[in-house]
Amino acid sequence: MSYMISKATSVNKALDEAVPLCEPVLKIREAMRYTLLSGGKRVRPMLCLAACELVGGQDSTAMPAACAVEMIHASSLIQDDLPCMDDDSFRRGKPTNHKVFGEDIAVLTADALIALAVKKLVTSTYFGVSPERVLRAVLEMAKAVGTEGLVAGQAADLAGEPMSLEEDKAGLEHLEFIHIHKTAALLEAAAVIGAIIGGGSDEEIERLRRYARCIGLVFQVVDDVLDVTKSSEELGKTAGKDLIAGKLTNPRVMGVEKRGNIFKGLIQTRWFR
Amino acid sequence: MSYMISKATSVNKALDEAVPLCEPVLKIREAMRYTLLSGGKRVRPMLCLAACELVGGQDSTAMPAACAVEMIHASSLIQDDLPCMDDDSFRRGKPTNHKVFGEDIAVLTADALIALAVKKLVTSTYFGVSPERVLRAVLEMAKAVGTEGLVAGQAADLAGEPMSLEEDKAGLEHLEFIHIHKTAALLEAAAVIGAIIGGGSDEEIERLRRYARCIGLVFQVVDDVLDVTKSSEELGKTAGKDLIAGKLTNPRVMGVEKRGNIFKGLIQTRWFR
Repeated sequence: MSYMISKATSVNKALDEAVPLCEPVLKIREAMRYTLLSGGKRVRPMLCLAACELVGGQDSTAMPAACAVEMIHASSLIQDDLPCMDDDSFRRGKPTNHKVFGEDIAVLTADALIALAVKKLVTSTYFGVSPERVLRAVLEMAKAVGTEGLVAGQAADLAGEPMSLEEDKAGLEHLEFIHIHKTAALLEAAAVIGAIIGGGSDEEIERLRRYARCIGLVFQVVDDVLDVTKSSEELGKTAGKDLIAGKLTNPRVMGVEKRGNIFKGLIQTRWFR
Repeated sequence: MSYMISKATSVNKALDEAVPLCEPVLKIREAMRYTLLSGGKRVRPMLCLAACELVGGQDSTAMPAACAVEMIHASSLIQDDLPCMDDDSFRRGKPTNHKVFGEDIAVLTADALIALAVKKLVTSTYFGVSPERVLRAVLEMAKAVGTEGLVAGQAADLAGEPMSLEEDKAGLEHLEFIHIHKTAALLEAAAVIGAIIGGGSDEEIERLRRYARCIGLVFQVVDDVLDVTKSSEELGKTAGKDLIAGKLTNPRVMGVEKRGNIFKGLIQTRWFR
């Protein structure tokens, strides 16, 4: 546990330094810092650092990559909360980015975080990582953001219509699509990028990819269940919102009771093989 | 002229192939194609290809980079037109992206185009460009998008308050900041990336940077003047909108008559040196 706290502390320090307030365009930088430094479990950067360590790399080498992955995550949170998306007012117990800075600045902040993530990842070369490996990491990150990742997941999530329980099977497939793209893709990228930067072999990288994708699916199942079983205070965001909005979630498709089966299913699924 | 038409035709073909409709997430891909293939002068990709040619490179080598730059431009157009930004209904004579696909899809489409631009630029390695050079090009592109480029320009543009004519000097400085970031930065990146990919020396790259930045400023002055002197039909977008919105533009700060002086000023400015 202290291992994880120490990692999270290092990540927070690096993120703080990555967006100094001294440069111009103050409002955007304030807005970037607001979401980037508003707590959060730092799961993705820790996965990135751990993957680097696992293949024999140093924490310091993967720290820019770890920050980059968290910046992408922060960017996606700002966008998901926008009035035209999930229209959320609270995140991590604080007003969402657009509630504080306005919708226009929030949209620009999301872009700025993606751009900074790319820049940050490129600085991995300063730590002796070869341009070949950094370029491969950049490609993984771009895939996790676009139509093979977050964008596809959020688009499918927005398209998710209220459904009857008879449509269980189709619903579950659609749900898996959403989770693979919206959650698992970036967790996968976090681990894969860490392994690439850390000097992992192709086999090591692909093993970590499968592992992280599965972690991603489990993560989303838990998140969906928490949404209906925990209070807004405990979650730091509006509870039960997905269910009220008629969104396709695990509890909606399978019921909270069946969550044990989902876990079993995940463990037996192709993602773990 | 036929040289430029031939270049633009090649760019349009490459862009068409870059976003095929066959893959999943059809609505996003349709929305990407809608803005990316809706005409446009292809100034940025042509500048990219020309810079590559100037330093002795081949068109085919710089085509992925040229497409990438146009994708970034398309992404910025979609965002600029959003209701929370300039709230524009027409662009290039057609309804804006969010008017056709909805605001949520438009926001995701802008992200998807940035991600695809990065992926596309990385494919330059397939054409024999070294990873070092591609990485350098990726960094230039990220800078042009973020707080050193488009984001900073748009944020400053949104912050531009109606002003009195006594504030001429401060207004002109603020205006120059907007134009350098909102327009010149991407034109600069287009030329610089073309020169990097084409194998240019550091000196050639920096010369092209200064040249393109200046082209960018001239470009925006002309665009601002056209906004108040041409009709909506001629422009393909709502005319006079910037002036009505009290936006900081060249005609507002200096009057349309003084535009000759702005050109002279630009030619004498540090950007040309």
